[in-house]
Amino acid sequence: MNKESMEDVRNAIRTGGWEGPTAGLAPGFVQANLVILPQSQAADFLLFCTRNPKPCPLLEVTDPGDPVPRKTAPGADLRTDLPRYRVWRHGELVEERREIRDLWREDAVAFLVGCSFSFESILLRSGVPVRHIEEGRNVPMYRTSIPCEPAGSFHGNLVVSMRPLPPREAIRAVEITSRYPQVHGAPVHLGDPAGIGIGDLNRPDYGDAVTVRPGELPVFWACGVTPQAVAVASRPEWMITHAPGHMLITDMKESELVN
Amino acid sequence: MNKESMEDVRNAIRTGGWEGPTAGLAPGFVQANLVILPQSQAADFLLFCTRNPKPCPLLEVTDPGDPVPRKTAPGADLRTDLPRYRVWRHGELVEERREIRDLWREDAVAFLVGCSFSFESILLRSGVPVRHIEEGRNVPMYRTSIPCEPAGSFHGNLVVSMRPLPPREAIRAVEITSRYPQVHGAPVHLGDPAGIGIGDLNRPDYGDAVTVRPGELPVFWACGVTPQAVAVASRPEWMITHAPGHMLITDMKESELVN
Repeated sequence: MNKESMEDVRNAIRTGGWEGPTAGLAPGFVQANLVILPQSQAADFLLFCTRNPKPCPLLEVTDPGDPVPRKTAPGADLRTDLPRYRVWRHGELVEERREIRDLWREDAVAFLVGCSFSFESILLRSGVPVRHIEEGRNVPMYRTSIPCEPAGSFHGNLVVSMRPLPPREAIRAVEITSRYPQVHGAPVHLGDPAGIGIGDLNRPDYGDAVTVRPGELPVFWACGVTPQAVAVASRPEWMITHAPGHMLITDMKESELVN
Repeated sequence: MNKESMEDVRNAIRTGGWEGPTAGLAPGFVQANLVILPQSQAADFLLFCTRNPKPCPLLEVTDPGDPVPRKTAPGADLRTDLPRYRVWRHGELVEERREIRDLWREDAVAFLVGCSFSFESILLRSGVPVRHIEEGRNVPMYRTSIPCEPAGSFHGNLVVSMRPLPPREAIRAVEITSRYPQVHGAPVHLGDPAGIGIGDLNRPDYGDAVTVRPGELPVFWACGVTPQAVAVASRPEWMITHAPGHMLITDMKESELVN
């Protein structure tokens, strides 16, 4: 696939030819989480992301009112090119929709945040298994007791995703993901879930539980759900995000992410 | 310190001004394990090291009969510049001595193998604590159930060193040491010692036991004792090694090791 093909994929999404989640679409290309906020809150949110780079690795921040991500996907339109959006008012989800053309504002600032889809495909290509993909489930995610560094009205605890691995693969996974800081980088914890305030691995706060086999360690990465959860908790009067699993497909190749 | 100072340190050792272990000498410079074998066995031992790079990271292999490590310490003489040597015959330790001038042979090939002193100082500078240094002990080392890849007469199981760390520091330690493959690289195991055939952390096969605190994971790295143990087990008619802890100080800076 090349960058021209990414235009085709985004065109298919824009014109209604693809409405589903983007996992597995455009293999080898980076997908991004989306958070759109009014300019009045953008400076604080930018500071929050800067202070918490593991859960909030910024791939790009747009200029106010500009719906084009000029760095990561210059041919894309953020108002139409994701398959599904969520609209939030004062921290409440009010609507899911297929495009947001008529909601766009001149003071809208879009944050594109790295997504673990990329490092999962890198792990798989490196021979490290990913359990929730094997089991056909969504990755299990958990709220932790680890506070993020606050910024203005934005504050909250870290959300992590979990992938169980035998010790040797856990070490390999740390080595590999540490070289990809733009998609959450190295894990934040491994081993005992109670060490970061997680009570029961079988009851994730988001996503689905997966099997943890004898001899495996649960390995926890900072999760891109964190910035969205933190943004919702701050109750901005207006906010738009991607719907879970329905990401922006960028022109960036995963191979460009290596540090 | 600069490379000229390394000459001074080695001169002090050569002339009897320093007889002790080299840990802590010449901070910032790479120290090396030494194995000297007859040329007749050197090809197989080189193959063994090449096949087992984690326990046997080769910094340099000398030409037969040449006592000068021309790459890593061109001003050094391997017959005199380590504080203490061990002489082995048919796999039995027959002598410890301060220099090996009269034992040197025209068919002697020296193997300089990376040493964990370097990555420990890198860990400490990165803020990762090293328990056996805190406790003033030798690092605990264990024979494992992990077989090395054999080569000719050289075969045996991996020996590992262990450093206990809280999960977050364990992850940092993997990230850091993975960038230093010439000094054993990333760990080979973490967590349950039984997973690699270790029965009791309190009874190391070499070195001293250290405290493992609640919530800490034991982290295991391939150890430079492995090549020496494997060489001894193959019972070469003649072999000389450094005495434990009495290393060659090279001209290489630790900062040159990063991958």
